[in-house]
Amino acid sequence: MFKNLPSQIEVVEVGPRDGFQNVKTFIPTQDKLAIIDSLIAAGITEIEIGSFVSPKAIPQMADTKEICQTILKKYGETINPSVLIPNLRGAQLAWEAGIRDIEYVISVSETHNKANINQTHEHSLAELAKILDTLPKMAVRVGLATAFACPFEGWTRYDQVISLASEITSLGVNKLALSDTIGVATPDKVHDLSLIMQKAFPASTFALHLHDTRGMGLANTMAGILAGIRIHETSIGGLGGCPFAPGAAGNTSTEDVINMLSTMNISTGVEWKKLLETTELVRNKVDASLSSHMAKAKIYNWPNM
Amino acid sequence: MFKNLPSQIEVVEVGPRDGFQNVKTFIPTQDKLAIIDSLIAAGITEIEIGSFVSPKAIPQMADTKEICQTILKKYGETINPSVLIPNLRGAQLAWEAGIRDIEYVISVSETHNKANINQTHEHSLAELAKILDTLPKMAVRVGLATAFACPFEGWTRYDQVISLASEITSLGVNKLALSDTIGVATPDKVHDLSLIMQKAFPASTFALHLHDTRGMGLANTMAGILAGIRIHETSIGGLGGCPFAPGAAGNTSTEDVINMLSTMNISTGVEWKKLLETTELVRNKVDASLSSHMAKAKIYNWPNM
Repeated sequence: MFKNLPSQIEVVEVGPRDGFQNVKTFIPTQDKLAIIDSLIAAGITEIEIGSFVSPKAIPQMADTKEICQTILKKYGETINPSVLIPNLRGAQLAWEAGIRDIEYVISVSETHNKANINQTHEHSLAELAKILDTLPKMAVRVGLATAFACPFEGWTRYDQVISLASEITSLGVNKLALSDTIGVATPDKVHDLSLIMQKAFPASTFALHLHDTRGMGLANTMAGILAGIRIHETSIGGLGGCPFAPGAAGNTSTEDVINMLSTMNISTGVEWKKLLETTELVRNKVDASLSSHMAKAKIYNWPNM
Repeated sequence: MFKNLPSQIEVVEVGPRDGFQNVKTFIPTQDKLAIIDSLIAAGITEIEIGSFVSPKAIPQMADTKEICQTILKKYGETINPSVLIPNLRGAQLAWEAGIRDIEYVISVSETHNKANINQTHEHSLAELAKILDTLPKMAVRVGLATAFACPFEGWTRYDQVISLASEITSLGVNKLALSDTIGVATPDKVHDLSLIMQKAFPASTFALHLHDTRGMGLANTMAGILAGIRIHETSIGGLGGCPFAPGAAGNTSTEDVINMLSTMNISTGVEWKKLLETTELVRNKVDASLSSHMAKAKIYNWPNM
């Protein structure tokens, strides 16, 4: 009787970027590739596989070029790999590596934008314009960090989100993600902002990128779905965080979201029991504790569940 | 824009019963009392403080009489303490201890009812009738265990829940709790069953009793609220489980629920930051790992959050 439930949701796996970049111990390239293979085997097709950032800043992402080339060669156009880039240089490296879909992040809170990437809004927007001018055939989506709250400034106002989104869409970008960077948003806020943004930008598509700090990851996913959001960014194992948001926990986990959606007969193209094999692979290969509930649940022999 | 959000929700704390009874190491009576005091100091008024079961079956509950007497003497009618009882004998002990509000549990799945309390539905209902006859002035609520799914039989059908609830309400009981004993229910099922039961039994009041095994505790709490459920049973620290439901995790935690509701400006009478002092007390006094998110979150110095 949740009358607005869709038959289909697109899940974008961001673990190999957002998850891995928050892991201190270097994950060997072969292990990263094995995890990506396993995600794809479970049915994931939209997947952020790395980041063209300075290897000095984030050594974990130093092998992104090799990963992109291997994945593109192996899977061709059967999947849609993307990467995160912090600037024009990163976008150019992505293009050269064969990537045609990139994510660029701006924090709605300028204080957080400065802490996270040491840039003003003006500079972030100017860099985005340069990327769009230089690589007109690249698909670009923008993640709006701290769309709900900032660890430095507190709750974000809806008009702040609208204002930044206006500047971004005026540059020609129409795919945006609303990010609860520190994981404090409540279902009412997620529902409201989702509706407000879709109404204010009818030509744009919005995704949700949630963190599970206070346990509301799935409640907020549901709130977003009820408000019409059809794209959800998640991370295998619940890996993730934000180095400039102390106290933030990992992303809402892919396996928790896929289990919930599958059990509600919402198709994602991903098999949740198969995906738990990826969870085990991550547990064995990645030096990080997994925060997903499905990673802890011992339930596989319950009938039909 | 979640238009059905109420201004108030009643949270029933079941940690000192459902939580503690799943802890193997005996918690000294003074520590149990200190935790109950702390819960009450945070604003909890509805609280299940123990169980009159056989001390041989559950040694952790052996001091329930002492706890009842101490709490009743200390707080009088400013709070409403209740206990769980498995049979008439337990109900009589509760009455003698001064308790005027009891919970009795029947599993919708008869297989689980036999595994959990070694009784058929017929026997469970006959015992309930005896309790109501013998103690006509006792307030009795019935928990419907496995209302969503059974670890032995799989998904529970809605008509099974209606059927058992009909028998219970025909005995004169009008307070029931829908329990997701193993924690696999999804928001659509919680929403649907909540609506169905309220429609089928308009003279009855329904609570939700959720477990967080697959991370949907808060999503399901929201689904229940959107479907009109105003009473939610939770456990401090996310303690809890079910000895006859292998793989089940603890209850949806009180602090996670209170944080979510408070942040949405839904009044519960409980202060969530004060409640985190109870969480710390439980962490120090109870030999169990805490599954609540708020117990792990390091977020207290974020502005206004």
